This record gives sequence, structure tokens and C-alpha cells, in this order.
Amino acid sequence: MSKSIFYHAGCPVCISAEHDIIELVGKDNVEIVNIGEDRTRIEEAESAGVKSVPALLTPTKNVLHLNFGASMADVKG
Amino acid sequence: MSKSIFYHAGCPVCISAEHDIIELVGKDNVEIVNIGEDRTRIEEAESAGVKSVPALLTPTKNVLHLNFGASMADVKG
Repeated sequence: MSKSIFYHAGCPVCISAEHDIIELVGKDNVEIVNIGEDRTRIEEAESAGVKSVPALLTPTKNVLHLNFGASMADVKG
Repeated sequence: MSKSIFYHAGCPVCISAEHDIIELVGKDNVEIVNIGEDRTRIEEAESAGVKSVPALLTPTKNVLHLNFGASMADVKG
């Protein structure tokens, strides 16, 4: 199984969800990307269908939006 | 690790998310509850903090709302 990618922006909701996802999926199975810090990956996230963060891109390329933390517009500022 | 509980209501978004969650977490680690069919569990879900379905209640009792499928009000009709 290829890795999932967890996109977040450092908000408290994101960090809480990050801990849950790592617990559930296993830390070796998920790449954590903070698009608030690594803004070069915002475009990649949007192309994958990420509408808000935190979101989990599964190995099957589905996007699971988790809670509603910050919209992509908010992250871009 | 105790089981997660995945609450859904049979909508297409829910079923898609269900497949993703089973793939990610492993089917032995998650109980699937269709609160559209098993309405006796709606109260339990709400008590756990479920605001919309599909949602995943983690073993640590956090609720991860996945996408936005149907509000609890919609499920109740």
C-alpha cells in the first residue's frame, strides 16, 4: 500500500487530527505536510482535490476532509 | 487499541469514505454503523460528538468528520 498524505496548516484542529490519523493509520503509512509552512505544496494539494485542511489524501487518491479547520483560501492568506 | 466506530448513513459519500477508512485502518479495527438503518444509535453518535456523517470516532474518543455528507438533522428527517 502506498502512503497517504495528510495535509494540514498547523492549526489546533489540524494537530489534533494529525495525532488521530497517525494513531489510526500508523506513522510509516502517512506523510505529514504542513502547507502553512511548506507553501510550495499548496498547488499539489489543490490539484489532488483538497478543499480545506486538515485533509487526508488516501493511496487510492480520494480526499477525506477532516472536520473543517481552515479553507484553502485562509491558508493562502 | 480499541476499535474506532465509523458512523454513516448510506449516502454515496459515506460509502466511498467507508471503503477508504477500511482500507486505511483495517476492517478489524473499525465498527461500521449505518445510523440511517440503525436509528437506535443516533443518540449514541450525537453523545459522542458526531455533528455530521460520515464521521469516525477514534479509540481516543475524538470525532473526525469526513467530508460533509449529511447533517445529523437530515438523517433524522
